[in-house]
Amino acid sequence: MQVYADHAATTPMSSSAFKTMCSYLRDNYGNPSGVHSLSQNARMAMEDARTGIASAIGATKNELFFTSNGSEADNWAIKSAAELMKEKGKHVITSSIEHHAVLSTCKYLEERGYEVTYLPVDANGQVSVDSLKEAMRKDTILVSVMMANNEVGTIQPIKELASVAKEGGALFHTDAVQAIGHLSVGVNELGVDMLSMSGHKFGGPKGIGALYIRRELKLPPLIHGGGQERGRRAGTENVAAILAMAAALEDSLDRLDEKVERLRKMRDRLIAGVIKIDGSVLTGHPCERLPGLASFVFEGIEGESAVLMLDYRGIQTSTGSACSTGSLEASHVLRAMGIPNGLAHGSIRFSLGAENTEEQIDHILVQTPLVVERLRSLPPLCTCGRK
Amino acid sequence: MQVYADHAATTPMSSSAFKTMCSYLRDNYGNPSGVHSLSQNARMAMEDARTGIASAIGATKNELFFTSNGSEADNWAIKSAAELMKEKGKHVITSSIEHHAVLSTCKYLEERGYEVTYLPVDANGQVSVDSLKEAMRKDTILVSVMMANNEVGTIQPIKELASVAKEGGALFHTDAVQAIGHLSVGVNELGVDMLSMSGHKFGGPKGIGALYIRRELKLPPLIHGGGQERGRRAGTENVAAILAMAAALEDSLDRLDEKVERLRKMRDRLIAGVIKIDGSVLTGHPCERLPGLASFVFEGIEGESAVLMLDYRGIQTSTGSACSTGSLEASHVLRAMGIPNGLAHGSIRFSLGAENTEEQIDHILVQTPLVVERLRSLPPLCTCGRK
Repeated sequence: MQVYADHAATTPMSSSAFKTMCSYLRDNYGNPSGVHSLSQNARMAMEDARTGIASAIGATKNELFFTSNGSEADNWAIKSAAELMKEKGKHVITSSIEHHAVLSTCKYLEERGYEVTYLPVDANGQVSVDSLKEAMRKDTILVSVMMANNEVGTIQPIKELASVAKEGGALFHTDAVQAIGHLSVGVNELGVDMLSMSGHKFGGPKGIGALYIRRELKLPPLIHGGGQERGRRAGTENVAAILAMAAALEDSLDRLDEKVERLRKMRDRLIAGVIKIDGSVLTGHPCERLPGLASFVFEGIEGESAVLMLDYRGIQTSTGSACSTGSLEASHVLRAMGIPNGLAHGSIRFSLGAENTEEQIDHILVQTPLVVERLRSLPPLCTCGRK
Repeated sequence: MQVYADHAATTPMSSSAFKTMCSYLRDNYGNPSGVHSLSQNARMAMEDARTGIASAIGATKNELFFTSNGSEADNWAIKSAAELMKEKGKHVITSSIEHHAVLSTCKYLEERGYEVTYLPVDANGQVSVDSLKEAMRKDTILVSVMMANNEVGTIQPIKELASVAKEGGALFHTDAVQAIGHLSVGVNELGVDMLSMSGHKFGGPKGIGALYIRRELKLPPLIHGGGQERGRRAGTENVAAILAMAAALEDSLDRLDEKVERLRKMRDRLIAGVIKIDGSVLTGHPCERLPGLASFVFEGIEGESAVLMLDYRGIQTSTGSACSTGSLEASHVLRAMGIPNGLAHGSIRFSLGAENTEEQIDHILVQTPLVVERLRSLPPLCTCGRK
């Protein structure tokens, strides 16, 4: 049995997204910046897609700008907001469990004279609203906190955090890459100024993302050049991927409540089964978490080896352990949550999607204890290939 | 009869590129940063594609970095080279006929304390090597000149220009977006340090490009985040588009000489026919030009109207006139070549591709004089919809 349980890394494309994409790749290939009919057809379709995606998050089409992915959207939001607001101050606040696209961009700002405060999280991976209140200063220009964490699935109190930022006169950005398509998100209800999303996390293709920018905010470009995206993001628009992202989002949000309910049940059954394994701990918030995400640490095993061994048994998952990159550092997310280094190395993330079945959960629940047991029985020197 | 003659704007996908793309979109959707088999398969295929594209331009795979398009590659090359070299100086040289991705990025640098010299071009649109020699200064850190112009097709003496830059201790970047796949390009033979390309200009999909960075050059990232592209460009790789770009480039370069010869003949027949029209002028270099590109200005017509009217007759083309953007400025390229403003407004670019036929050229040669005549017969106030 094959079980793809790595949807937080990337998702298979929804069938309508795939169909749309192929049609625009093959037949409707006009460059939307042109004047002739093939170009204008591409442009009109792209603008319809923009309207669709914007309205799905409660925005207007003039507030949605396409990027090549979530990382570009994060870079754009943070670097350009810092640039725009530098006369007011140079203090930025983020959390210690952000995606690297946010953290590395904050480091970049630090090297350029900005000061960044990294808010701590509690043992469940949540940022407290009080800690943001305490961290706010007169020269705070930007707060960036992710909507849902990619490693442990914890959902942040974005509405409350954005409200604190606004009161303090700072802009608020959220990396919603893991949330869009999986949770109901409304930019006005949340009160965010900028929001990043990524198509391939909800059944769209890789290579396409978007940044929501509140209408009043005149964010300068990150990529300069032609007049595409109303002069805010240069480069020929990735029309086919934009249309596919719109189709995928429509699919994702269609009967979202039912899907969320079904995923939550599967996830909770998975959690209940896995935590029966000796030396296993659920990571992330017990209930304020993404509906499809179940993440654990296991004593005495290496996450990378576990992922490989589960893969041999037909189950695709991820680990926060950075062993694969040649570094032996454990996940910054798990460490920020207070999980000891040794334990943090043994992380496994199961992230479920709409196509997963109860039978597949059964398969995971049979195989995972066997894999953990097998890894623990290996001689110590062999638990990580690089030792 | 339908005649797509706007290949310099974007190309239809090659059939093998399309097939490859769909296969990877649907079936091989792993995130290449993962550990499991689906991820590793994606990663291996992507690295093969990298090797293929790199070797096609005489580079090694560690010198090729994927971006979302040519504009991002241009932004990255110019902004990051300026950042890297700022201790040496803050003088940049480019040409006055570059793509906006280069020109707007140079403006961005000017706003940040850099000085930019814009080299003039002659009536054929060529930069002279002597003018670069004269412009070089001790504090010149970067020279960026495009390989072939997108509006008039003129090819620049890149090897000679790069050699002058190198002698002066400056880096050399070329925007080769219009050249790759259409001309034989070798980065070592040319002596360039950085080269930008774009997949959709040679039969690949939109949304994918690449930057060649010479091995010794430690160019900082433009997009910060995860460790993708060996830490130089963050964001989940657009695997399917990368593979499709590699397939398209392989297709383009297969029997390139034959294709170039065929295109040149068609282009020259097109030029010979069109310049028989009264008040028409070929723009760009008469022979040092892209094999498929024929560009003209016509007295007494508006390019945008001509493109629309040709489109009604089944012929898709472009104009350098910016009328469509609401601005009435004529093309900066044509103005830099000394073409008077009024004449520059009447530009039409025919850009041919491998699938064009002699019968299609016949159709263009019949329709174009009719369109020009018709437009000239309109009352003056109606030649541009916005007057």
